[in-house]
Amino acid sequence: MAAPVGEVPTNANAQCPGTASEQAGKASSCKGCPNTAACSSTPKGPFGEVPSNANAHCPGTASDQAGKADGCKGCPNAAACASAPKGPDPDLEHIAARLSTVKHKVLVLSGKGGVGKSTFSAQLAFALAAQGKEVGLMDVDICGPSIPKMLGIEGEEIHQSNMGWSPVYVQDNLGVMSIQFMLQSPDEAVVWRGPRKNGLIKQFMKDVHWGDLDYLVIDTPPGTSDEHISIVQFLLASGSLDGALVVTTPQEVAVADVRKEINFCKKVKIPCLGVVENMSGLEQPLGQFKFLDRSGGEEKDVTAEVTAALQQLGPQWADLIARTEVFAPTAGGGEHMAKAMNVPFLGRVPLDPSLGRACENGKSAFEEDSGVISQAALKQIVDKVIQQCNPGAGGGCKK
Amino acid sequence: MAAPVGEVPTNANAQCPGTASEQAGKASSCKGCPNTAACSSTPKGPFGEVPSNANAHCPGTASDQAGKADGCKGCPNAAACASAPKGPDPDLEHIAARLSTVKHKVLVLSGKGGVGKSTFSAQLAFALAAQGKEVGLMDVDICGPSIPKMLGIEGEEIHQSNMGWSPVYVQDNLGVMSIQFMLQSPDEAVVWRGPRKNGLIKQFMKDVHWGDLDYLVIDTPPGTSDEHISIVQFLLASGSLDGALVVTTPQEVAVADVRKEINFCKKVKIPCLGVVENMSGLEQPLGQFKFLDRSGGEEKDVTAEVTAALQQLGPQWADLIARTEVFAPTAGGGEHMAKAMNVPFLGRVPLDPSLGRACENGKSAFEEDSGVISQAALKQIVDKVIQQCNPGAGGGCKK
Repeated sequence: MAAPVGEVPTNANAQCPGTASEQAGKASSCKGCPNTAACSSTPKGPFGEVPSNANAHCPGTASDQAGKADGCKGCPNAAACASAPKGPDPDLEHIAARLSTVKHKVLVLSGKGGVGKSTFSAQLAFALAAQGKEVGLMDVDICGPSIPKMLGIEGEEIHQSNMGWSPVYVQDNLGVMSIQFMLQSPDEAVVWRGPRKNGLIKQFMKDVHWGDLDYLVIDTPPGTSDEHISIVQFLLASGSLDGALVVTTPQEVAVADVRKEINFCKKVKIPCLGVVENMSGLEQPLGQFKFLDRSGGEEKDVTAEVTAALQQLGPQWADLIARTEVFAPTAGGGEHMAKAMNVPFLGRVPLDPSLGRACENGKSAFEEDSGVISQAALKQIVDKVIQQCNPGAGGGCKK
Repeated sequence: MAAPVGEVPTNANAQCPGTASEQAGKASSCKGCPNTAACSSTPKGPFGEVPSNANAHCPGTASDQAGKADGCKGCPNAAACASAPKGPDPDLEHIAARLSTVKHKVLVLSGKGGVGKSTFSAQLAFALAAQGKEVGLMDVDICGPSIPKMLGIEGEEIHQSNMGWSPVYVQDNLGVMSIQFMLQSPDEAVVWRGPRKNGLIKQFMKDVHWGDLDYLVIDTPPGTSDEHISIVQFLLASGSLDGALVVTTPQEVAVADVRKEINFCKKVKIPCLGVVENMSGLEQPLGQFKFLDRSGGEEKDVTAEVTAALQQLGPQWADLIARTEVFAPTAGGGEHMAKAMNVPFLGRVPLDPSLGRACENGKSAFEEDSGVISQAALKQIVDKVIQQCNPGAGGGCKK
C-alpha cells in the first residue's frame, strides 16, 4: 500500500489513498467510505486549483461553489474564495485577441531536462524563418532561459510601445521573447514560486505584440507543472493550438519521463504532433578524437600512433564520421515509445558537437556554411512538423 | 528600458520597473515616485509569498501586516490573509525533530536539466553506502523522478508504520524516498502546480522515518522555484544543512544556467560545497565505434576498412579509449565558472556511456566488476564531498 497523498480524513477507510491523490474516491479501498462522493468531486485535473492550506474537500477555487460548499466551512480561504470574481478570467479575452494574428502555435515539451528542447526550438524557428515564414519564439523557461543565447541575442532588451511589448528581433521575420531580456544581470537567479511564474507567462501572452505570425514556437522548461499548465490553459483559451512536439533522448531513464509528458498532453487534451529523438548516437569526424591507452594502469596518449595507422586510409581519414551510441536506447528509445503510445515519431538527430557549437554561438544550423553535420536530419524533422501543422498540404495535425 | 514585471501603478513614474520587479522602489527611475516606499517594502526575496492576484503593494502573506496593511484594501485575499495563522509554521518543529537523527544533509542542484544531477546523486549515495555509512536519498523531482530507476528499485512501494513512512531500501544502509513509488502507473504524469508539490515535499520531510543517518542526499529538479525554495526553507528550519553540490556540463549554455543556481545559493544563504562538471568529453573504447564515409553525398559504412587499418596496432586496439569534446567548454567550463564565482571545483566526470548503462540498470559504478570507465573520476569527487562535509577531517564545509 502506497502512502497517502494529502490528508486522510479521521473517518476515512483504512488504506485511504489521501484526499489529494488522483485515486481519491475511486480506489478500491474507498468503497463504503463516507467521504467517497466528496473526494471524487474534488478537482484533481490540472486546471482545478486547490490551495495547499485548503480543507480536505475543497471544490477548487474556480468552482461556483468556492467558499460556499459544505467542505469550505472553516477553511482559511473561504472568505477570499467566496468573494473572488467567478466566471472566465477577463484576461483570456485579451490573450485571444493578441493571438488572433498567429496562424500556428507549437509547444515544445519534454519531461526530461537537457534533452535538447531549446536547441530544437531554436533550430525549428531558424528553419521556418529561412523559408520566409513570419516566426515568433517564446521562451517560458522562467528559471533557466537559454533561447536568447541560442539565437545570438543575449544582452538585448525588450522595448515597449503603445502596441505592447516588442519582441527582440534576430532578423526581420524572427522575433523572440524571454525573461532573460528582463534581468539586470545575465546571471541573476529568478527565485520565483509558481504564481509569479504564471503571472509573467500571462504577461507574455497578453502584452507581447507579435503582429502577423505564421508560426509561434513556445519553448518550455522540463516537467508538467505551473508553466505547462498555465501555457496550455492560455493557448486553449485563445482558441487554437496546433499541438506539442515532445523531445526525448534514447535512454530509458529519459524516455520514462517523456512518457509522462505525453500523458500530460492526453490529460490536458492537446494533440501530440510527434516525438523527436535527440542525441541519438554521437557523430563526430575521426580527426577530432584523441586516443588514450589505459591498459597499463597509467594513462598514455597514443594519438600519434593511431593517427599513423589511420593515415593508410588516405588523406580523407580525418573526415570519416565516427559513430557510437552514447545514450543507448535500452528499451527501444523514442521510436518504440512513440509507437507504443500511439503518437507520430518524427525522426532522430544525432548527438552532434557541431550543432552544439552552432547553438553556443547563436547560429542557425541551416546556413550553407554552418558545418553542422546533423543539418539533413534536422531538416527532415522540420519538414514533418510543417506537414503536421498544414494538413491541407498533406499533414495530419488538428488545429 | 526593459518591460516592467508585474503591475505599473497609475501614478508611477515613467520607466517604472514594475511592482514585482527585484528593482521595484530601488531603480534609478523610482526616484521621487509616490510608491517608492511601498514598493521597496514589498517582499521580493524567495520566502516572501505574494499571491498572483494580490494588490500591487502586498506585504506578503507571511507578514504580520498581511490583510491589514493599507495596500491590502480591496485585495481579494485580505480576509484570508488577516485570519490566517501567523508565526512560525508548526510543522517546522516536526521536521526539525525528524531530521535530528541525520548528521549530514547535502542538496544536489543544477540550473540546467539533463546535466546528470540524478546520476551523480545516485552514485554519491551508492559510494557513501559502500563505505559503510547509513545513507538516505530523497528525490524531490516531483514531475520527473529518476532516482528509483537509477537505484534499481522501480516498482517498489512505500510502506507506512506508526513510525511514519518507511523509505524503500536498496540495501540495509541505503534508503530511498520518491514520488515515483506513489504512482499508480510508472508513466503517470504528475500535473501539479507549486502548492501541491510543496505539500508533498513537506510530507517527505515530516513523515519519512529515516532513523539514524550519516548522510541524507537530496536530488532536486532543475531550476530555482517551488521545490528548491521549499526544501531549503525546510532544511534551514531543521537547524542544519551542509550545503549544496552544483552539477553542470561544460558548454556555456549550461554553465550560464548554473551560475544562476549558485546565485540562488547565495540568495538563500546556503553554502555551496562545490561544482561538479559532468559530461566533460566523451570517453568510449575505440572498438565500440562505427565509421561512415559521407564525402560522396551517399553514406558508406567503412567500419571494416578502418578496423583493418587499426588492427596493425595490435589486438588491444579496440580497448584504446577514444576521447573527444562533445559539449565543448567554450567559456572555460565548470572550473573557470567556479573560480570566478568563488566556490570550490570538485572535478570532472567524462561523458561515459558505461556510467549511463550502470544507471539504466540501477547499478553502482563502484562495484568491482561494474566496468564503469569513469569510476576513478567519480571516486575522487565523492572523497572531496566527504571532506567538505567533515571539516575536522580536513574539509572546509560549514554546518
